[in-house]
Amino acid sequence: MTKLYNDPARFTEDMLTGFLDANARYVVGVPGGVVRAHRTRPGKVAVVIGGGSGHYPAFCGTVGFGFADGAVVGNIFTSPSAEEAASVARAAHGDAGVLLTTGNYAGDVMNFGLAVTQLRSEGIEAHYFAVTDDIASAPRGEEAKRRGIAGDFTVFKCASAAAEDGLDLAGVVRVAESANAATRTLGVAFDGCTMPGADHPLFTVPEGMMGVGLGIHGEPGVADEPMPSASALAQKLVDGVLADQPATESKRIAVILNGLGRTKYEELFVVWGTVAALLRERGYEIVEPEVGELVTSLDMAGCSLTLMWLDDELERYWTSPADTPAYRKGAAAPAVGEGSAELRTAAELAVGADAAALAERADDDGRNGGRLVARVLVAMAAMLADVEEELGRIDAVAGDGDHGRGMVKGSSAASEAARSAAEAGAGQGSVLAAAGKEWAAKAGGTSGVLWGALLSAVGARLGDTGRPDATTIAAGMRDGYDALITLGGAAPGDKTMLDAFLPFVEDLQRRVADGQEWRDAWQAAAEVATEAARATAELRPKVGRARPLAERSVGTPDAGATSLAMCLRTAAENFTSTP
Amino acid sequence: MTKLYNDPARFTEDMLTGFLDANARYVVGVPGGVVRAHRTRPGKVAVVIGGGSGHYPAFCGTVGFGFADGAVVGNIFTSPSAEEAASVARAAHGDAGVLLTTGNYAGDVMNFGLAVTQLRSEGIEAHYFAVTDDIASAPRGEEAKRRGIAGDFTVFKCASAAAEDGLDLAGVVRVAESANAATRTLGVAFDGCTMPGADHPLFTVPEGMMGVGLGIHGEPGVADEPMPSASALAQKLVDGVLADQPATESKRIAVILNGLGRTKYEELFVVWGTVAALLRERGYEIVEPEVGELVTSLDMAGCSLTLMWLDDELERYWTSPADTPAYRKGAAAPAVGEGSAELRTAAELAVGADAAALAERADDDGRNGGRLVARVLVAMAAMLADVEEELGRIDAVAGDGDHGRGMVKGSSAASEAARSAAEAGAGQGSVLAAAGKEWAAKAGGTSGVLWGALLSAVGARLGDTGRPDATTIAAGMRDGYDALITLGGAAPGDKTMLDAFLPFVEDLQRRVADGQEWRDAWQAAAEVATEAARATAELRPKVGRARPLAERSVGTPDAGATSLAMCLRTAAENFTSTP
Repeated sequence: MTKLYNDPARFTEDMLTGFLDANARYVVGVPGGVVRAHRTRPGKVAVVIGGGSGHYPAFCGTVGFGFADGAVVGNIFTSPSAEEAASVARAAHGDAGVLLTTGNYAGDVMNFGLAVTQLRSEGIEAHYFAVTDDIASAPRGEEAKRRGIAGDFTVFKCASAAAEDGLDLAGVVRVAESANAATRTLGVAFDGCTMPGADHPLFTVPEGMMGVGLGIHGEPGVADEPMPSASALAQKLVDGVLADQPATESKRIAVILNGLGRTKYEELFVVWGTVAALLRERGYEIVEPEVGELVTSLDMAGCSLTLMWLDDELERYWTSPADTPAYRKGAAAPAVGEGSAELRTAAELAVGADAAALAERADDDGRNGGRLVARVLVAMAAMLADVEEELGRIDAVAGDGDHGRGMVKGSSAASEAARSAAEAGAGQGSVLAAAGKEWAAKAGGTSGVLWGALLSAVGARLGDTGRPDATTIAAGMRDGYDALITLGGAAPGDKTMLDAFLPFVEDLQRRVADGQEWRDAWQAAAEVATEAARATAELRPKVGRARPLAERSVGTPDAGATSLAMCLRTAAENFTSTP
Repeated sequence: MTKLYNDPARFTEDMLTGFLDANARYVVGVPGGVVRAHRTRPGKVAVVIGGGSGHYPAFCGTVGFGFADGAVVGNIFTSPSAEEAASVARAAHGDAGVLLTTGNYAGDVMNFGLAVTQLRSEGIEAHYFAVTDDIASAPRGEEAKRRGIAGDFTVFKCASAAAEDGLDLAGVVRVAESANAATRTLGVAFDGCTMPGADHPLFTVPEGMMGVGLGIHGEPGVADEPMPSASALAQKLVDGVLADQPATESKRIAVILNGLGRTKYEELFVVWGTVAALLRERGYEIVEPEVGELVTSLDMAGCSLTLMWLDDELERYWTSPADTPAYRKGAAAPAVGEGSAELRTAAELAVGADAAALAERADDDGRNGGRLVARVLVAMAAMLADVEEELGRIDAVAGDGDHGRGMVKGSSAASEAARSAAEAGAGQGSVLAAAGKEWAAKAGGTSGVLWGALLSAVGARLGDTGRPDATTIAAGMRDGYDALITLGGAAPGDKTMLDAFLPFVEDLQRRVADGQEWRDAWQAAAEVATEAARATAELRPKVGRARPLAERSVGTPDAGATSLAMCLRTAAENFTSTP
């Protein structure tokens, strides 16, 4: 288990401080993550990798020559926010565009996708790509639904080498796609990992068993089997990955035997002896294999086998040199002082931070509305702090148990921002916009970006002047729902917050159309949402979860739907004056 | 715990197979360990490091340009044999001598010391040096008794860089001494590690506590304290190491924050943030720190802080480039094909293996004697196999619990060699010599080299012709005892096998001088040895153990004395015909 920490809530920040200090010759910190200590040279595409932390050396440990230009660093096993991703991308960007790439997780897809939209609106050419190497997480034919695990490494490496080689953004994206299409991983877990400050692991594997098809965020495997010998495990991994071979005749392969954290090098070498022999028996030529810890999951016990079938281009990029804090290969980086490797200036490093300026264009009604919104958000944050553990427990049935933590972080930051904006005299629209921005920035994860978008959309409809009428308020909630749909990733019936939110919006609009007072209508609709949230227990998630985990969740309501209904009820209880 | 293995008895061999396969561009295997894939260039001193395995990347993971020329690879936490050390040194040697260096453990000191004697007898200039950085294992003023832990890394690195720089053997030895004198380490453990195939860890730390002053062979710490926060731990480590500062005014330091295996990078970075700040507050300048896993102990949880106070020479060697399987730094190695980096030939790689040729100069009496010796050794091996677990339990009280395993490996190999020599018609002297050589080569550890020397010395006295009389047999046992004393490291009263062996030899010689028949005398003397072995329970070891561990052993007899007495009794039971 994770033993060394100060304040668990500041674990990631403390970790980054130490990482940056120990690796100052490679990297510098920027808001949201790290970038190379040396400026991106003119004409070179920047590659920004990332996701939650807890996977060292992934992701910040591979920022440097021949590999990534920057890494966005989220909390442990939690997607960074869109604002953090955009911030690191701005700092890493030279003049030739930026590829943002992560493993395929709903939170990362959403936040990095939003960051791309934001960057493009600022005139920065940007593209997002999600790695899908984990064959256990979805069957053949549904490759696009697969998670990214240790195959992140082969894809990030090849895309980064292509960028170092001078390819343009379209070329770098093509290499990333090609590497991903050629990469397959199968993993196993022997024991779970423990989050900093927690007193029990995220999952356990029964004694003498192993979980097949592990995730790297503390997700258990999708099937338990008796613990095999090292050589029987090697056989299982080789057979499993080869059974999912992509459409290629190539017999040249890059191979990673990756340790998850507690499975040590000596054990990996024992397994590797058999893996290498089996692959050669099948006629494969192994090109510069990596046996060690490349994508970890805190101190989880387990390992995974990754194969990338090589063509000439992928082989060139797989074998090309790199020089980063945790991964070095071949020739060294250009020395400091050469034209291509100028140290960054302090001014450049501040580029990621841009202050939120709140409009001061409200009238008295708007200011009253702003104060009401702030009061409601403060009440929601207090309520969520009380139920954090309960939400975590619900989420842990089929997920990583971080929903409570994420909601508390987001609502607490949002209520702070709302209060400060309301005190400064902002109207309801600006208060909601400020709250939404902070929620997304501080919560991380999927729920953070969704709640951020929801609040911002409602705020845009309500505006900063006058008292919105019941129809406008109901339309604002419909706008919030539409914003979630636009972010994609889920539809009603997928066992998400949408399954509570859509019944709420429909009931609210119907009641308002029938002439009901908006606070009464909201209260009644919140009860409908509560019932709908309970009913999600019967649903089976259709996105973002490996199939067996989805089965496991039947009987438990969705955590996001549950917390949404709680927030809607808390809001109803606090509407004591009309905005 | 260690989960992945095939036959636990072949773990090290399986590990080496995989390691060599995955790192074929750096290293090749030779009998006893590994050497660089490229020949040592003319004029360059070879540096051979080593010790038991289970510490990856120490030691074989740092064989390559700028670091070691070869690594001797013993079984997990067990010294390799002298023959293995000599074999790797022969293969690594160019034409300018070889430095053999390990951490300061009795088994390594003995075996590598013997290897140096052997190499010199073959005309190879050789020197041995033992690292003593662990401040918890002996107080100030007794630095020479300290163990080597993560400070192995700074000393091996600087000595290796000096050799790469072209210094002669005396110069390389001087740099090793200088680096060792400037290096201090303090470590802590949170949880023990488990040997392959074992079902419980070598030690445990009580929940919520940490062991201060850990060893890297599964030895527990020397004191238990409540588990602190990361920053309180940083303070403790910094204070502890600085309190043992060597005599220097230097404020420039190389620093290693080393993870033992299960304490992950994220946690190490959290601790590092405070360590770095505290050291700078005290006015130190940190030069190219290393934060990660450099000297591990399987999956033990814990970490250690190493400081090396730098002068200009040490700083140059600490910061110079290296390119090895697990540790790379700065500029790359010279490319293959350059004069200094020729690939080795198959013939060179066979240099370590030299077949044992048994003399065929026995008469009929000698051949009878050879068969008797073989019969006795086979009986001893069978007896030891029965008591392996019991010996392991006794040894585990203050040691690493490997005594039973070592005795079984050694006696089994020795009895095989003796039987085959006796069948080929060798006399008692040659049979004992062959058995002694195999025991030392296969058992590893301290007991292996001692038993090997003992049997060889007895054989030299008995010779291959005629029937030795009682006086010769007693003198032979005295020769065996003298050989152990010559190997050094212990004296009677130090709680070792000597405390059973000396009373045996004295009793045997007295009875024989009194005219007693040698088999009766041996049987009586073996009873004396058995009693003396029991009495070692009252002794306190004076060599090779940290003081608190020595205290812990009072009340338990010495494992080596116990197994010796058992062997002497078994021999007495099997003397059914006179040699």
